[in-house]
Amino acid sequence: MIIVMQGKAGEGQVVAVVHRIVDLGLKPHVSKGEFRTIIGAIGDESLMRPEFFAGMAGVESVMPIMKPYKLASRDFHAEDTVFRIGGVKVGGTALAVIAGPCGIESAEQFRETALAVRKAGAAMLRGGAFKPRTSPYAFQGMGEEGLKILQAVGAEVGLPTVTEVVDVRDLDLVVRYADVLQVGARNMQNFRLLAEIGRLPKPVFLKRNPAATIEEFLMSAEYILSEGNRNVILCERGVRGFEKTTRYTLDLSAVPNIQGVSHLPVFVDPSHATGRRELVVPMALAAVAAGAQGVMVEVHPHPEKALSDGPQQLTPEAFAVMMKELAPIAQAVGRELQKPK
Amino acid sequence: MIIVMQGKAGEGQVVAVVHRIVDLGLKPHVSKGEFRTIIGAIGDESLMRPEFFAGMAGVESVMPIMKPYKLASRDFHAEDTVFRIGGVKVGGTALAVIAGPCGIESAEQFRETALAVRKAGAAMLRGGAFKPRTSPYAFQGMGEEGLKILQAVGAEVGLPTVTEVVDVRDLDLVVRYADVLQVGARNMQNFRLLAEIGRLPKPVFLKRNPAATIEEFLMSAEYILSEGNRNVILCERGVRGFEKTTRYTLDLSAVPNIQGVSHLPVFVDPSHATGRRELVVPMALAAVAAGAQGVMVEVHPHPEKALSDGPQQLTPEAFAVMMKELAPIAQAVGRELQKPK
Amino acid sequence: MIIVMQGKAGEGQVVAVVHRIVDLGLKPHVSKGEFRTIIGAIGDESLMRPEFFAGMAGVESVMPIMKPYKLASRDFHAEDTVFRIGGVKVGGTALAVIAGPCGIESAEQFRETALAVRKAGAAMLRGGAFKPRTSPYAFQGMGEEGLKILQAVGAEVGLPTVTEVVDVRDLDLVVRYADVLQVGARNMQNFRLLAEIGRLPKPVFLKRNPAATIEEFLMSAEYILSEGNRNVILCERGVRGFEKTTRYTLDLSAVPNIQGVSHLPVFVDPSHATGRRELVVPMALAAVAAGAQGVMVEVHPHPEKALSDGPQQLTPEAFAVMMKELAPIAQAVGRELQKPK
Amino acid sequence: MIIVMQGKAGEGQVVAVVHRIVDLGLKPHVSKGEFRTIIGAIGDESLMRPEFFAGMAGVESVMPIMKPYKLASRDFHAEDTVFRIGGVKVGGTALAVIAGPCGIESAEQFRETALAVRKAGAAMLRGGAFKPRTSPYAFQGMGEEGLKILQAVGAEVGLPTVTEVVDVRDLDLVVRYADVLQVGARNMQNFRLLAEIGRLPKPVFLKRNPAATIEEFLMSAEYILSEGNRNVILCERGVRGFEKTTRYTLDLSAVPNIQGVSHLPVFVDPSHATGRRELVVPMALAAVAAGAQGVMVEVHPHPEKALSDGPQQLTPEAFAVMMKELAPIAQAVGRELQKPK
Repeated sequence: MIIVMQGKAGEGQVVAVVHRIVDLGLKPHVSKGEFRTIIGAIGDESLMRPEFFAGMAGVESVMPIMKPYKLASRDFHAEDTVFRIGGVKVGGTALAVIAGPCGIESAEQFRETALAVRKAGAAMLRGGAFKPRTSPYAFQGMGEEGLKILQAVGAEVGLPTVTEVVDVRDLDLVVRYADVLQVGARNMQNFRLLAEIGRLPKPVFLKRNPAATIEEFLMSAEYILSEGNRNVILCERGVRGFEKTTRYTLDLSAVPNIQGVSHLPVFVDPSHATGRRELVVPMALAAVAAGAQGVMVEVHPHPEKALSDGPQQLTPEAFAVMMKELAPIAQAVGRELQKPK
Repeated sequence: MIIVMQGKAGEGQVVAVVHRIVDLGLKPHVSKGEFRTIIGAIGDESLMRPEFFAGMAGVESVMPIMKPYKLASRDFHAEDTVFRIGGVKVGGTALAVIAGPCGIESAEQFRETALAVRKAGAAMLRGGAFKPRTSPYAFQGMGEEGLKILQAVGAEVGLPTVTEVVDVRDLDLVVRYADVLQVGARNMQNFRLLAEIGRLPKPVFLKRNPAATIEEFLMSAEYILSEGNRNVILCERGVRGFEKTTRYTLDLSAVPNIQGVSHLPVFVDPSHATGRRELVVPMALAAVAAGAQGVMVEVHPHPEKALSDGPQQLTPEAFAVMMKELAPIAQAVGRELQKPK
Repeated sequence: MIIVMQGKAGEGQVVAVVHRIVDLGLKPHVSKGEFRTIIGAIGDESLMRPEFFAGMAGVESVMPIMKPYKLASRDFHAEDTVFRIGGVKVGGTALAVIAGPCGIESAEQFRETALAVRKAGAAMLRGGAFKPRTSPYAFQGMGEEGLKILQAVGAEVGLPTVTEVVDVRDLDLVVRYADVLQVGARNMQNFRLLAEIGRLPKPVFLKRNPAATIEEFLMSAEYILSEGNRNVILCERGVRGFEKTTRYTLDLSAVPNIQGVSHLPVFVDPSHATGRRELVVPMALAAVAAGAQGVMVEVHPHPEKALSDGPQQLTPEAFAVMMKELAPIAQAVGRELQKPK
Repeated sequence: MIIVMQGKAGEGQVVAVVHRIVDLGLKPHVSKGEFRTIIGAIGDESLMRPEFFAGMAGVESVMPIMKPYKLASRDFHAEDTVFRIGGVKVGGTALAVIAGPCGIESAEQFRETALAVRKAGAAMLRGGAFKPRTSPYAFQGMGEEGLKILQAVGAEVGLPTVTEVVDVRDLDLVVRYADVLQVGARNMQNFRLLAEIGRLPKPVFLKRNPAATIEEFLMSAEYILSEGNRNVILCERGVRGFEKTTRYTLDLSAVPNIQGVSHLPVFVDPSHATGRRELVVPMALAAVAAGAQGVMVEVHPHPEKALSDGPQQLTPEAFAVMMKELAPIAQAVGRELQKPK
């Protein structure tokens, strides 16, 4: 860590910083320049968060050298994390497509969707049983009944299932029915939920909060990893921007950006990011071209009747077209498209 | 609600929209212009969320007329909501200052702070026992032990207490010890937590998520209100912006903006918004001038030794100066500064 | 245009709005609902900008029905705009790659780059002679000498040239030497410059300002189009976001989003958007997969010695690899990669 | 400047960085830690912009120690810059209110406004003769005729005048008529215009671009200062944010934030920031409480008939009320409200 003192900082202020460095069991290194005194703190950076120094008198700025996350970092684990969910390979050169409706609304609706997306080549099945909704007056999901449908249909079509956990008290329940536990964007910093999930033996699908920097996103992954669960998928699903004609601004450069610093697989959800059906397919293709290791898209047999997020759900026909267009792009960037058995 | 059809929308698409409006039990009103057909849907807007129409073929845009929140709206409740916490008046023309350390670190630290802020004129006491931290390796709070200190010191100095709930499973515990339940910015859309809190007989201090629009913020308040709890304080604490020298961008115009559409009291937390001590006092004064009904500031007897958020905590001396500067501004804008008994 | 009155708006306020509509030569249409009175203004929307009504007493909100741009809209011109620059087709199903250094630093540097990018398959050549730099102390470009190099090298390698105009007083000069006039992101709302360029017979490469909505971007194009110049290329180059590890946030969904409402060709500049070489290639590929009609990338023979923007410039070798990867993606999405003659 | 090497950086890469430092005439200082090698470059930072190193092989990040601006910095000029415009003191402890219509629409409209704002206590008069408008079809200002009205009315009421320059070619003209040259938000990075204005003997009113960081804002001031003109006023007028109910997000914390690093006076324009009349007064009061050295507000005798920005212009009556409320707040924060002679 490097501490830059203000131009007008006095000798006593420099000494106070040095003492604090020594108190933390680290080695100080003072360098006096013409305009500024710079102090290095050498040793274990986990002992010296910026805030330990940023508020001290005479300090102008504090610059960490190491990233604040460890287990999520390529410094700690240089190779791509690769694991299997059912028969589906995730991470590395694999490309997995997850599809399904925003919410499970009935056995018929979910089964119809599942059969269609499996036929078109999806590798995993999504469907919400507990829905976080902005409005208390909106459809909140079918709950356990929805989970039962998820499991039964997943087994029938032979695809692993992904569903969201919105309440830490539902964890035991969701774990019994689903193959992958999704943490939604709004819960990305629900640290207690992350820690609990970190103790479970199920893969996690962690979505980026729309206000989270990449560092904050990886810190949330670190909560899960540090509890022992190493099968974490990161999913970019749009950041909060100023453009009014899309729901969020899809930050596709986050894909190679995260892959440069972390070994975890990076997926993209263009449905929630854009909120508009006609933008979903171009963004799914772009995500693959950018190097994403998976995409998650919403598919509904009758989007105009969907109980949630209708405008962003693809029809099964549109999804099938998307899968056809996606294949050559996957090949062009060296991704192996995972197929249902 | 008003549905604008695309210029090229066909008659069948118009008819489909009309049918859906009728199916929802509403009255359609079709108006054909030179370039666009416009369809009004008249009746209870709670039956007709934009997404019911936005995804239909031929629809260009959907414009709600009514706000999606009701109980939080001035349409529903025209007068300012005013209530008391202990002897402290909240809302309307009252101005309440909440102060205390970011986290409760020990009985001594908290007691020293409490005595100082009470003396300087704070009306309520804050202190975190459960801390949501970006890093799993950072201080996470003292838990129940902290709550006991909070309660004991609050009773000793005679100030109502505010503390954050970070896990729905801790609610019973926190309710026993604190006077006001704080929902932090990261939990603003933890809808299950909001609903549970809505069933409790304690005032709520709800912080705005840094990515939340004002409408989303009020929808979260609506979750609480719709369960029966009407004593909700809204707190602006900075939105995510691009400026790198502050933690967040304090959106002070949110104060009069929210007050225009909602009857709930609006507070401001300049400590978390700016993250820098030297900006806290100017922003606290500005919040009062903008018409805020309260401010929450962090005070620590030794900020440079704080276990969390040191750089943004005021010393007791700086807080006392702030209270002196704040008084004439409160008077200038017609706010009655609440004082400890 | 639709004007929504406040719930408490009085009859006199409604009448005032109606009178203003009539004064503007339009037809009013009043609809009284249970909670709100809604007033439609039917006729030429160009006569009735929202601000004519938004500030009137009793008005809650004003909703335009028509887009504020005309010539840039698909309502006005349904088919894709396609034109030729030298032998290079731009727009429609064509895909054109523009490459070259950020700034022209010497005849040798520019010639070496031009030969390399031509060989790798670039269709046009870029190079800045006038550089807008954040710092007054940074390299500001070679000026007219740079323009001469641009023209000579362009002629030698047989590629059309693109260069930026930073001052309206330089227009006559730049027009003499370059084939395409670039308006940089910082000048996107330099309306006088846009109007002057609109009167010239040269294609324009208009970059999106990092704070501009898509509507504002198209309004700037409208300035050029309305003066008669119809050969405008739009270029997305990143919006201002909160992420600190990239320069800007590339808004790739803007590509299909703009193409949905406008007939103008849409290009993407991943070099300025990301500011980091290792993100440029993935984002260039993603742009093509998203349906962009062109990409502009910066290439420098010795990026580590570049006088500006070194970290984002590709080596000629990296550019050649990019072109190889790009070809199959272009094919997958139905784009014809334009090649030098 | 500090250069942090990647964990995997080789010895050769370290040597290359060291050589470049030496080539630039600076002194290198290498410090090998357990995980990273850190290289300091000691000497004149103006010779070593981050981009000189950021693109080199093996470099992870580059951290400047010095700010990139000099003349605008308190390091260079510790005391507040204070100057006079006519009889009005600007900067330091002075508080100046600038008022007037968005655009000059006629001699009558401007004179009526000027008399009213003078009476209410405005210290300077604003009015646009050249208006930058998003739409090419909107009122673009009265041009020279407007400037003549500005000058005549300013002389009549005895207030210095402020008006915007939108085209570098109009500078000679505007200089003849106005007392202060305003550079609008859209021209904040029109560097040629800044440089020309820097050579003129007139005070400059420089508005922050809605996408500009504070550092970029000060770099634009540096363009003016470095040409010799030292009388620069900085004006915060809202940054681009995601909230849809205000035009921009007023970044009030920029006031003390800029004042901490720069000696230049900081003003606030709440009219353009919010775009809504009912938010202008609270934000003007808040700006003064935050320590602003001036505010600029728009006043129009008949806002509902204004040719531009009607919804944000105050009536003369509302302005007079604002001036009354503002006085005690100014006093509370130690600002001397400048009054017309």
